[in-house]
Amino acid sequence: MREVADLAGVAMSSVSRVLSGHPDVSPAMRQRVMAAVDSLGYQPDLLAQSLRRRETLSVGFVVGDISNPLQSQIALGAETALRSRNYSMLLTNSENEPALDTSHIRLFQQRRVDGLLLSLAAEDDPQTLALLGAVETPIVLIDRELRGDVGRRASAVLSDHRSGMRDAVGHLLDLGHRRIGMILGQPMRFSRERLEGLKDAYEARGLAPTYAVVEGQLEPRHGRAATQTLLDAAEPATALVAGGNQLLNGALAEIQQRGLRVGGDLSLVSCDEISLTQLYQPPIAVVRRDTRALGRRAAELLLSQLESQEEGDDGRMRSTRAPETVLLPTEFVARPSCAPPAAPAAA
Amino acid sequence: MREVADLAGVAMSSVSRVLSGHPDVSPAMRQRVMAAVDSLGYQPDLLAQSLRRRETLSVGFVVGDISNPLQSQIALGAETALRSRNYSMLLTNSENEPALDTSHIRLFQQRRVDGLLLSLAAEDDPQTLALLGAVETPIVLIDRELRGDVGRRASAVLSDHRSGMRDAVGHLLDLGHRRIGMILGQPMRFSRERLEGLKDAYEARGLAPTYAVVEGQLEPRHGRAATQTLLDAAEPATALVAGGNQLLNGALAEIQQRGLRVGGDLSLVSCDEISLTQLYQPPIAVVRRDTRALGRRAAELLLSQLESQEEGDDGRMRSTRAPETVLLPTEFVARPSCAPPAAPAAA
Repeated sequence: MREVADLAGVAMSSVSRVLSGHPDVSPAMRQRVMAAVDSLGYQPDLLAQSLRRRETLSVGFVVGDISNPLQSQIALGAETALRSRNYSMLLTNSENEPALDTSHIRLFQQRRVDGLLLSLAAEDDPQTLALLGAVETPIVLIDRELRGDVGRRASAVLSDHRSGMRDAVGHLLDLGHRRIGMILGQPMRFSRERLEGLKDAYEARGLAPTYAVVEGQLEPRHGRAATQTLLDAAEPATALVAGGNQLLNGALAEIQQRGLRVGGDLSLVSCDEISLTQLYQPPIAVVRRDTRALGRRAAELLLSQLESQEEGDDGRMRSTRAPETVLLPTEFVARPSCAPPAAPAAA
Repeated sequence: MREVADLAGVAMSSVSRVLSGHPDVSPAMRQRVMAAVDSLGYQPDLLAQSLRRRETLSVGFVVGDISNPLQSQIALGAETALRSRNYSMLLTNSENEPALDTSHIRLFQQRRVDGLLLSLAAEDDPQTLALLGAVETPIVLIDRELRGDVGRRASAVLSDHRSGMRDAVGHLLDLGHRRIGMILGQPMRFSRERLEGLKDAYEARGLAPTYAVVEGQLEPRHGRAATQTLLDAAEPATALVAGGNQLLNGALAEIQQRGLRVGGDLSLVSCDEISLTQLYQPPIAVVRRDTRALGRRAAELLLSQLESQEEGDDGRMRSTRAPETVLLPTEFVARPSCAPPAAPAAA
């Protein structure tokens, strides 16, 4: 490090500031130091540094399934924001198993990550909650809501699912649908809010609650089984709302199997934009949100916690900033997958 | 750690083996030690351990864009395999910029990752190659081919794009198509192999090379522009092959804009299965591969390198195992998006 400072003709403290990613460094200084670093082949040892500084510049991200487009876009947004401030992101997949959430959080603690981004598999798993109660690093929940002390201690980025769903169901009701079938995933905030939006739309129009709701897992298999249930009911649904892209996949498979025309025989709304919703013929109406922004805002909340930390009397770092909750909007996009209900087939 | 050993009634070395994830530990021993760990609330400090052991049990994964379904499935496969052997995965997105590849590899070195999984943005970037030449940890390339010493030193998991594409183009030729338009991404191995497969199919049938190829970036914009080029040519293509799911998105947007019927006015083949190819009406033929296995095999190659390392006379760890290259199959799945060419419209 001294050689780097000598070659660059700057003070050791300047080299240290550049290498630690300090924000108050001019581009010229950064360039000068990095040129010396490159020509000497110097590699600062982040690991030894982090033992001294008691920080690792790493963040653990627990995600349900990174191959789900919703979650991979959130991860992209988070990673990009973290990287811009020199944090690295460790990623694990819980495979939507609460027990794996717990073991990954424990692993991240052992690796001394500076903070956690959590898209948990469940909001009420007792072991996860007990473990999080003992976590001292900042936590940001992504589209999850935890009760009690743990919930109050954590920051959160939430989506306003309710208002987008209210508009979606309102659109279907205004087209004349009354028997709307909603397919939901696990009983977490996103499911509860979508259900509230559905109810809001019926109530705002003074209509009797003639909807049907099928809850299950956010998986294509449930999407398909729920579609069967809703279409085989004594009063079959004339419009379906799939609460997630995995549910949509299953619903579409069943609709195609039955030879039903989307936007003709059956109206369809999904949640979250994917290439399928945009390019399907007819295009599929969605309750849309900026998923990349969801990840970016989560990372920003975590960074603001980390950057306001001060060392307490006991030598532990604690944030001086209260946890924050940010609510990001959703938006309903009407498309030709929604049309007036088909006239009932002659008996 | 002594307390854990005492409570579990086992030797310190047994505790150490359990906590380090040593493979030769009985399930009963693991359970006994972990029960003591849990009841004492003991947290091994992986960071301090890794300084002693000179390993971090972490692997760096450089990916182009985790929100691309191809890459997120590879990442899922890799992370799951790494986790099963107690390795954590650090993830960065290069945004398909070779300069970011370089800076992320450098960052991973500073964090002393034990190995690298690389899905590079380019195969011939001089700075990336120079940097990789100096990397001493094991490297596994994912669907990339590097020349020279760096290429010889690295392990690789490759897809056999050529044979799947040969079958796909053969199917189109056998349906009567002669003017086949191929849309390719960057000039990397996956593009070269797809082009070779195209040529193979024409040559195997003794046909003149009446195909057209448009190269560019693996982005929807290029998919769309290339589709325009191929359809507006003096001899318009009667069948399109999109070399990736991002290209497919752009191609479909243009096809729909022109009001062309897939499988009627125009035949279409894509590469890699996504929900869109399966659920589009008509379903879209694909050259398919097991993307999750691609990530899993890459992680396994890296783990076999890491687990065969021995300390050299200079104190550095080196693998005693030669780098390996694994070729995984692709498979063409014919679907109704491919049909005989439409009769030319009357002039």
